[in-house]
Amino acid sequence: MTTTTQTRYTRAHATDPTEPIVLQEQGSFAFGGRWIQRSDGGNVLVDAGYVQYQIPAGAKKHAIVLWHGYGETGRTWETTPDGREGYQNIWLRRGHPVFVIDQPRRGRASVSGPGTRIPAALDEDFYFTEQNIYEAFRLGIWTADGPQPNAGSAFPPGAESYRQYLSMTTPSNGPDGTEDGFSDEVRNLMADAVAELIDEIGDSILVLHSTAGAFGWRAAARSANVKGVIAYETSPFTFSAAAPPAALPYDGFETAWIDPDLIPDEEFDRLKDVAIQVVYGDYILEHAEYGTQRKRALQFIDALRARGGQAELLDLPERGITGNTHFVFSDLNNLAIADLMSEWLDAHGFSD
Amino acid sequence: MTTTTQTRYTRAHATDPTEPIVLQEQGSFAFGGRWIQRSDGGNVLVDAGYVQYQIPAGAKKHAIVLWHGYGETGRTWETTPDGREGYQNIWLRRGHPVFVIDQPRRGRASVSGPGTRIPAALDEDFYFTEQNIYEAFRLGIWTADGPQPNAGSAFPPGAESYRQYLSMTTPSNGPDGTEDGFSDEVRNLMADAVAELIDEIGDSILVLHSTAGAFGWRAAARSANVKGVIAYETSPFTFSAAAPPAALPYDGFETAWIDPDLIPDEEFDRLKDVAIQVVYGDYILEHAEYGTQRKRALQFIDALRARGGQAELLDLPERGITGNTHFVFSDLNNLAIADLMSEWLDAHGFSD
Repeated sequence: MTTTTQTRYTRAHATDPTEPIVLQEQGSFAFGGRWIQRSDGGNVLVDAGYVQYQIPAGAKKHAIVLWHGYGETGRTWETTPDGREGYQNIWLRRGHPVFVIDQPRRGRASVSGPGTRIPAALDEDFYFTEQNIYEAFRLGIWTADGPQPNAGSAFPPGAESYRQYLSMTTPSNGPDGTEDGFSDEVRNLMADAVAELIDEIGDSILVLHSTAGAFGWRAAARSANVKGVIAYETSPFTFSAAAPPAALPYDGFETAWIDPDLIPDEEFDRLKDVAIQVVYGDYILEHAEYGTQRKRALQFIDALRARGGQAELLDLPERGITGNTHFVFSDLNNLAIADLMSEWLDAHGFSD
Repeated sequence: MTTTTQTRYTRAHATDPTEPIVLQEQGSFAFGGRWIQRSDGGNVLVDAGYVQYQIPAGAKKHAIVLWHGYGETGRTWETTPDGREGYQNIWLRRGHPVFVIDQPRRGRASVSGPGTRIPAALDEDFYFTEQNIYEAFRLGIWTADGPQPNAGSAFPPGAESYRQYLSMTTPSNGPDGTEDGFSDEVRNLMADAVAELIDEIGDSILVLHSTAGAFGWRAAARSANVKGVIAYETSPFTFSAAAPPAALPYDGFETAWIDPDLIPDEEFDRLKDVAIQVVYGDYILEHAEYGTQRKRALQFIDALRARGGQAELLDLPERGITGNTHFVFSDLNNLAIADLMSEWLDAHGFSD
C-alpha cells in the first residue's frame, strides 16, 4: 500500500461533485424498541434502532434505506475511507430520500438490556486486526513483509484510508446473533424493527450489506413497502422451512453465515413480489467462504424464481468491474457500482 | 403528560422552517484513536472518535462543534424528541459549518479495548428508567399517579416525545470516566482527540452539554482554534491546580460532577483567551445538584475573569426564558435559546 498523505476533512475534493446538495428536510428518530422492568419497578426502554433521514428537494417517490453489516454502523454508507462520497450522498444527488440506519444494539441505537457482545479479552475473534481483516474482506493477503493487495484491487490506497476503514468497527451493546448462530429472537428483533420503520417510510428500496442478510430478508417479507432489495454480498440467506436448500460442502470457516435461515412458507412466498438483486465483487470464487455464500445465493434466487419472483445475481467482474472488496459501495469504483444500481432501479420502475 | 399522537417522520412540520438547507458538502470521518496489540501480534485500532460534518453553501468562517453529554451521542443535537429541528439544523440554517461528534467509546465511534461500561445487572444506576430520569433532568417529579411536569415545563409533551428522548440513551463501550470519578487517562483521551479534531477544522465554537464539561475545558485549552465555548449545564468544571476553588457544601448526590478538575496553571491560563458562556435553564436553585454545580460555575468564571478572561454565566429565566430542562437546546423554546447564542456570537465577532 502506498502511504499517500490525505486530509480527512476538506471543503473541496478535486474528484468529487461540487454541486450543492439541496435538502428539503433532514432529521433522525428511533424506531422499534421495547420496555423492560427493573426490580425497583422502573421501566427501561431498550433495543430501539436509529435512523437518519435526508429528503432532497423535489424528491423521488422511492426511498433508499441503507442497512450496514456486522461490526459496522450507518457510517459505512457515508464518506468512503479515502474521503470520497459514499452511498448516502450518491443517492441524494440522484434524487432519492435516503434513510441510514443503525440497527438495534449498534452505534447510535438505544441502550440494550444487560449482557454485552464486547469481549473481555483482546484476543477473542471479535477484534478485527489490521492483519486479519485484510484477508477476510478480500483486500489481499498480509505477509511477513506487510500487506500485499490483490492484483488490481479497487480498495482506496493509503495508510490513512485503511485507518479510517478500521475505525468504522463498532461493537454491539447486546446480542446481535453472531455470538450464537443467529437465534430466532435476535433475527425477529432486528427484522421487525426495520419492517416497522419501512411501514412508516413508504415505498422503499432496501440496500443490505453482509450480515444484514441475517435479518433483512425477514424484514423485506414483513413490510409490503419494501419494493426492491439490493444485497451486497449478504449472508446468510433465507428459505422456506417447507423447502430447505440442498446441503453445501464447506469447511474451515464459520457456518452461521452459510446455514440457511428457515421461515414459514407463506412468509418466504412474499419475497417473490420483491425485485431482488444479489451483487458480488471480485476474487469471490477463489475465496472459499464467499464462494460458498454465492452458491447459497444461487439457491435462494432459484427458489424465488420457481415461484415467479424477480431475483437475480450480478457478478461485477462479468460487467467489467473488477478489483472489488467486500465493501463494493465504498471502493474506488463505487460510482460505477451505483450506476448499475440505477440501471436496475430504472428497469423496475423504481426511479420515479 | 398529554398523549398527543405524533408522527416521527413527516416531510413537513407545520411549525418548522420550510426553506431547503443547501449543503456544499457533507461527510464523516474518524479522529484520534490509538493502536493496541494482541498476543498474536495483530494491531487493533481503538478509541477513535467520530464526526459528521455539514458545510452549507457560502458558509461562515466559524464552525459550530457540538459535543453531547453522558449516555448520549451526537443524536442529541439532531431532531428534537417531538420532531422539530435541533441545533444541527438550526446552525446550518444560520450559515455555520456544523460538526456533530460521537466522543470516543460512544455511538458510532470506534470499538474500544476490552472491558466495558455496560453493566451486567439491570438494576445498576447506569440504566435510566422513565421514572428516575424524569426528576434527574428536571422534567418534573414522578409520583405514584405518574409524571407531574414542572409548572410551565418547556419539555416537549406527549408519550412519543418521551419515548424518543429515552431512546437516545446509549452506553459507552469502554471507560468514559463516570465509573471512577474521571481519571486523568480518560479525560486526556477525550480532550486530546477533540483538540486534534478542532486543530484540523479551524476556527470553532465548541458547544458542550452536561458531562462534556469533564473533557471539554481541557480540549478548549489544548487547541488554539477553539475561539469560544457555549456550555449548557456542564459539569464538572476545570481549575488551575495552583489555585483550587474553595470547597462547597453538598450532600446526597454524586460528587464526581462537582469536584474540580485540576490542570496545570499554564494550561488553565489559556482559557482566559477563549470567550465562554455557561448557560443554565429553569428550576436550578431548587435542585440541590444543579444548584451546587452552578456555584462551581461561578467559581470557574471568577477564576478566569481574575486573569482577564471573558467568561460569563447566563441564567435563562433572567432573560424571560422559562421552563427549561437539562436539555435546553431541544426543549420547546430552543429557537429562543439559539437566538441568545446568536447574540453572543455577534457580540464576540464569531458570526462571520
